[in-house]
Amino acid sequence: MSHPAPSKRTHVRRLPDRARYDFDTLAAVIDSAPICTIAFNWEGSVHALPTAHWREGEHLYIHGARASRMLRALAAGECCVTLSHVDGLVYARSAFHHSMNYRSAVIYGRFAELEEAAKEASLRAFIEHLSPGRWDQLRPINAKELYATTLLRLPLHEAVVKMRSGGPKDDDEDMAWPVWAGVVPLRLAAGEAQTAPDSVVGEIPAKLGGALLAHPPQR
Amino acid sequence: MSHPAPSKRTHVRRLPDRARYDFDTLAAVIDSAPICTIAFNWEGSVHALPTAHWREGEHLYIHGARASRMLRALAAGECCVTLSHVDGLVYARSAFHHSMNYRSAVIYGRFAELEEAAKEASLRAFIEHLSPGRWDQLRPINAKELYATTLLRLPLHEAVVKMRSGGPKDDDEDMAWPVWAGVVPLRLAAGEAQTAPDSVVGEIPAKLGGALLAHPPQR
Repeated sequence: MSHPAPSKRTHVRRLPDRARYDFDTLAAVIDSAPICTIAFNWEGSVHALPTAHWREGEHLYIHGARASRMLRALAAGECCVTLSHVDGLVYARSAFHHSMNYRSAVIYGRFAELEEAAKEASLRAFIEHLSPGRWDQLRPINAKELYATTLLRLPLHEAVVKMRSGGPKDDDEDMAWPVWAGVVPLRLAAGEAQTAPDSVVGEIPAKLGGALLAHPPQR
Repeated sequence: MSHPAPSKRTHVRRLPDRARYDFDTLAAVIDSAPICTIAFNWEGSVHALPTAHWREGEHLYIHGARASRMLRALAAGECCVTLSHVDGLVYARSAFHHSMNYRSAVIYGRFAELEEAAKEASLRAFIEHLSPGRWDQLRPINAKELYATTLLRLPLHEAVVKMRSGGPKDDDEDMAWPVWAGVVPLRLAAGEAQTAPDSVVGEIPAKLGGALLAHPPQR
């Protein structure tokens, strides 16, 4: 591996050939995932909550209501952010070698709150991530909405990606066993875009879903 | 809500109308998710790792290598298990009201290890979940494989589901704003099943993906 693990806790010991530590691989996993799951400790319990995210450079961003308990907990301590893509179900000749194809990222660190002055530009980046060109078409954000929204960002320097791809890997002596072996590929797919009945604009924008979707929805 | 929250930490305070506490809703979220994310504390850090799961009655099951650090950590303390489905991207007239449609479950508790004698029947349930009728066609599991595999299960009595569905909910004064408003539905979709080049059986089984996939792969 040309990139070493950045820390002890990101060093993959089980199936280490599935680990990746380079930034481009990490960024691709983040940018194509609609949500992440954030684990943190709060009031004596471990919690893990899903939330939407976006990336700007070497930080992962999240947002939420100013009063949110999760955002207060995240500003107060370390967390672990996980993002997962399930790419396929792998059917082998033995139960033991069944598997899944996947790409997952695990990031450790501590979120920091964005200053008021930086929030609007970053929310713009979030909207543009979900629909390029959309921000300038929206009813402009106002001071009350900006105030009510907290943004946090997490540096991406302590992270690891694990991935598996390809077909089943059976034991040599099982190769002729008479059962179907193969892969069912899975992906996050968009259905046909549904215009709101009260939308005054009927034309569906291009590039809806942005970098999230390899195949944009039908227009 | 006819079902109350089972504990303080599962009681949803933000947008409580999105919370569900009934078992059938929870079971449906679990059964249609290919993976869960498990958060736990170990060696002074919070961790969250994705893994495959299945359900039998009122327990969620996972498995892994006997030597796995995660499984040892889970047997030693409490955890939080999260499962998420992203059902759609919701585009509103203002940035503030953009949203996602989703179903997510958060479960608190402690995993317990299965006894040796119970493991084979439970692994059978896992395989049958991914492909009904498959277990009896496989090369039978052997004692070495069974010994190498640890199974853990978590009771489902302390859990909450949150969900959102439907279109954008904009402020009254924004309804005529000239921007497209609507939803891009998302789902986990199966591609065409890929038979391994060295599979001696070419016919693709029915019901691949089982309860995970509303639309099984093309045969």
